[in-house]
Amino acid sequence: MPRTGRRKKKLFITFEGIDGCGKTTQAMLVSQLLTSERYQVKLLREPGSTAVAERIRELLLDANTNLTDTTELLLYEAARAELVGREILPALKAEQIVLCDRFYDSTTAYQGYGRKLDLRMVRSLHRVAVGDLKPDLTLLFDIDLKTAFSRLGKNPDRLESQSRAFFKRVRQGFLDIARKNRRRVKVIDATQSVEEIFEEVKRYLARRVDLV
Amino acid sequence: MPRTGRRKKKLFITFEGIDGCGKTTQAMLVSQLLTSERYQVKLLREPGSTAVAERIRELLLDANTNLTDTTELLLYEAARAELVGREILPALKAEQIVLCDRFYDSTTAYQGYGRKLDLRMVRSLHRVAVGDLKPDLTLLFDIDLKTAFSRLGKNPDRLESQSRAFFKRVRQGFLDIARKNRRRVKVIDATQSVEEIFEEVKRYLARRVDLV
Repeated sequence: MPRTGRRKKKLFITFEGIDGCGKTTQAMLVSQLLTSERYQVKLLREPGSTAVAERIRELLLDANTNLTDTTELLLYEAARAELVGREILPALKAEQIVLCDRFYDSTTAYQGYGRKLDLRMVRSLHRVAVGDLKPDLTLLFDIDLKTAFSRLGKNPDRLESQSRAFFKRVRQGFLDIARKNRRRVKVIDATQSVEEIFEEVKRYLARRVDLV
Repeated sequence: MPRTGRRKKKLFITFEGIDGCGKTTQAMLVSQLLTSERYQVKLLREPGSTAVAERIRELLLDANTNLTDTTELLLYEAARAELVGREILPALKAEQIVLCDRFYDSTTAYQGYGRKLDLRMVRSLHRVAVGDLKPDLTLLFDIDLKTAFSRLGKNPDRLESQSRAFFKRVRQGFLDIARKNRRRVKVIDATQSVEEIFEEVKRYLARRVDLV
């Protein structure tokens, strides 16, 4: 293969975990690595990455808006539908590698397990938003609440007990998803250093793409 | 009953039809009539009527945003979930009369029949957004495209044929919904004058509320 050419590979990888788990850092490292390996890479984040989805993201993250749980769920799925239709499917069709910082597992974990919305209903909305699309590989960065929050510069002990219970449910939700989808979802111990985590990420990656 | 008192009545009425059918005028006339009859009335419109839903409405109506059909559908349902949770259910609980200018039948007609999204999927989203809530009475203002558009000051002949076909499907969709829900949905000939239409509306209303 000529050094100037672009290597084609249709692959969809998602990065999941609670806030502070380090998934965004790893997604960027993977993006850099694959780009340096001459793959065409699209790095996306959820919710967002399209004009409309970023406006929905604003609405979701605006501290002044106190949304009902169902509205929140539907807005996440609306942003997802836009991302899938406008970015992910076209990129995969063009045989690019798509890396997505959060995808539907986050909604299952946060809105389903965290907010206790009906899991079957949540999954039926995933199907509406994404159709048959499924990540080829999902990397779940598992970490305890205390370590995650200290990385974010927050004192987890200061969290009200309701919030602590919420994030515990979210973490357990992610682990539950991993247990039910062993082939797709790989759990990585995210209390390790960035370098150690990246070594593990590269091992999973090497099973799917040719790395020099 | 003392003239100063408020009459209590738990009732949910929706006003449906294609653009230019006159439903908004009739909703306002009904609101005025019921208020003068000392009922507590809440007049709402979809999408909108809450801070969050109005922001979603802006997104939906912004001509610069070219949404995928699924995103559009999910955004309508998100705005609806907010309206139901924040306004409609509390008002009904307080035994008020809720009048809503468009509700889920509009989504079935426009996104289901008009955009040709799967009707079962559309209905499953209604259930996510509204739960068990169902209008007690739906007034469908049926009108031909030509008359409706001339009221809006638009020349229907100038409409591209794709748009004309779209609105024809929407109208047929509304009539189909009426056929399948005869007890709830009442079809009114909206080519009549405002006064004639209102007389018909009042006849349906008189079966549900005491009018002096």
